Amino acid sequence: MNTLKEIAKMLLKAQNEKILLFPHVNMDGDALGSSAALCSVLQKLGKTAYILTEDDTAYNIEFLDRGYCVRVDETTVGTPDVCICMDCGSTDRFAARAEVFENGAVSVCIDHHITSKPIFDMNYIDGSAAATGEIVYDLIKELENASGRTLFDAEIGEAIFAAIATDTGNFQYSNTTEKSHLIAAALLKIGTDESGVCVKIYQNAKLSRIKLNAAAVDNMKLFADGRAAIATVTQDMIDACDAEMSEADGIAETMRNIRGVEISVLLKEYGRDEVKVSMRAKSYADVAKIAAGFGGGGHVRAAGCTLRMKISEAEKIMTEAVSEALQKEMQ
Amino acid sequence: MNTLKEIAKMLLKAQNEKILLFPHVNMDGDALGSSAALCSVLQKLGKTAYILTEDDTAYNIEFLDRGYCVRVDETTVGTPDVCICMDCGSTDRFAARAEVFENGAVSVCIDHHITSKPIFDMNYIDGSAAATGEIVYDLIKELENASGRTLFDAEIGEAIFAAIATDTGNFQYSNTTEKSHLIAAALLKIGTDESGVCVKIYQNAKLSRIKLNAAAVDNMKLFADGRAAIATVTQDMIDACDAEMSEADGIAETMRNIRGVEISVLLKEYGRDEVKVSMRAKSYADVAKIAAGFGGGGHVRAAGCTLRMKISEAEKIMTEAVSEALQKEMQ
Repeated sequence: MNTLKEIAKMLLKAQNEKILLFPHVNMDGDALGSSAALCSVLQKLGKTAYILTEDDTAYNIEFLDRGYCVRVDETTVGTPDVCICMDCGSTDRFAARAEVFENGAVSVCIDHHITSKPIFDMNYIDGSAAATGEIVYDLIKELENASGRTLFDAEIGEAIFAAIATDTGNFQYSNTTEKSHLIAAALLKIGTDESGVCVKIYQNAKLSRIKLNAAAVDNMKLFADGRAAIATVTQDMIDACDAEMSEADGIAETMRNIRGVEISVLLKEYGRDEVKVSMRAKSYADVAKIAAGFGGGGHVRAAGCTLRMKISEAEKIMTEAVSEALQKEMQ
Repeated sequence: MNTLKEIAKMLLKAQNEKILLFPHVNMDGDALGSSAALCSVLQKLGKTAYILTEDDTAYNIEFLDRGYCVRVDETTVGTPDVCICMDCGSTDRFAARAEVFENGAVSVCIDHHITSKPIFDMNYIDGSAAATGEIVYDLIKELENASGRTLFDAEIGEAIFAAIATDTGNFQYSNTTEKSHLIAAALLKIGTDESGVCVKIYQNAKLSRIKLNAAAVDNMKLFADGRAAIATVTQDMIDACDAEMSEADGIAETMRNIRGVEISVLLKEYGRDEVKVSMRAKSYADVAKIAAGFGGGGHVRAAGCTLRMKISEAEKIMTEAVSEALQKEMQ
């Protein structure tokens, strides 16, 4: 493990260096926000810096990409001097870009996932940070100290705020720390339009997503004395709402938010015999354990598995498994 | 206007004084949270302190009332030494308790509504505070300074965090300031379970509310090239969802959160010829102006009016009015 001071020194050492940032596939607000903030600062410092991507950016965080994102096939890439693994700890998280990453003279990891190992040339992994954006905030402070320049501005503030806000559920989740709030306060002070960022991210839902959520709530069933809820998203519903299956994200949370519901189960029909199960728990149940019983896994309060059967069968089986698990909790 | 130091001194002056707090009717997280925090501190300081209420507390903030709330008819009330108007600026906001308030030897106002006037014996009104909870935080600091005692604890932290979180939409709205975040950071430091507060407030929705929201989305129509959305909540829907009309709160926001939608309109059928209209705007439209055209009013981005007609007629009229307003915006 290195200090951020060491990483800052390494990044500053030569002008015109080519530095590429590698966020994980399926970028979330933290992956893109922390990368955009760092990319902006590196460009300010005279580097040739880009964020290398391989898939489309989610429409509600697109505003964070101000021309920073490029694809592997673009001529801008070339042979990088420094490659930074952002918000993840392995090239497996960006397989289509792994080769470019390996070409870098120096490899760096900047991440807040406790499971990441320091396997690169330089590593800063802090599992206590609520978001990689918090680490990038500190890194920019080090770059300011080492360069003697003011680097923060409202645009960088937006990117870091987006990173922290999305990874903490707007300061709701238990990963939120004193530091998360202190950074948000400091960013407001330099003129960051934090409420504008929230409008862009949260008031930007596709119609199809809202329709799909409502359709799932419509078929939702409560069981286990109201301590569990289950709903299905079928291919027919996807067609009727003109939606994609990825837009079913969030339905399990909607159900979990119901008073008295401890476990919510969403069944997603990917094919006639392929059902993906997403489970959420509110405060005491262990859904990772339930998922493990079907070859799946995840976190204690958010887990999933895949069932090779019809969705009606899957509903029966999951209802039984969840009822049983809740029964055991009460004993 | 007084300083918080002056109000703190007045509150501290005698032991066993009876101090009553008067939050507005239909208490929200800020009214109850700021009152509960102050009540807890006053009891610690040896006062006989209560929150006087006249209506039921919303189920998702009930946890903030740890026995602080009492009704007018209880013997605990008696003749108060100090009466404090909390999170509002007039006894009109608690009409059924106004008489008790008038009996108080000293009247005080603690509020963050810019429209409130300093009409009581002592007044602290700060329109720049995101929540009354922020003012109470500062007042408790003054009480600590003046009494030489440590007063903050995790329970008081929960109440103040609930006040700030609910009034800022979890630090999303533009009223959020550097100070809002600094207070949240300080409360985390003293062991406040902020994520636990969020679970209690936000993961505690009645089933009927979720069902009613889905049913409204089901009848929602987009118009004005997708820049506006309109939906209805009829008495039949209320019956079918086993809901109350107050649970329609939030549907206008759900619609406004759709990508491209600038104005959302929710029509609530209170009677055969009584329709209450709630409008929300995202970023540029003035819905207060539209509401004023029908004898209503409100804020620029959140306003409403009442129409004396059938809901089908109301839908036609509001669709026309909103289309016209958006047309003008584009000119």
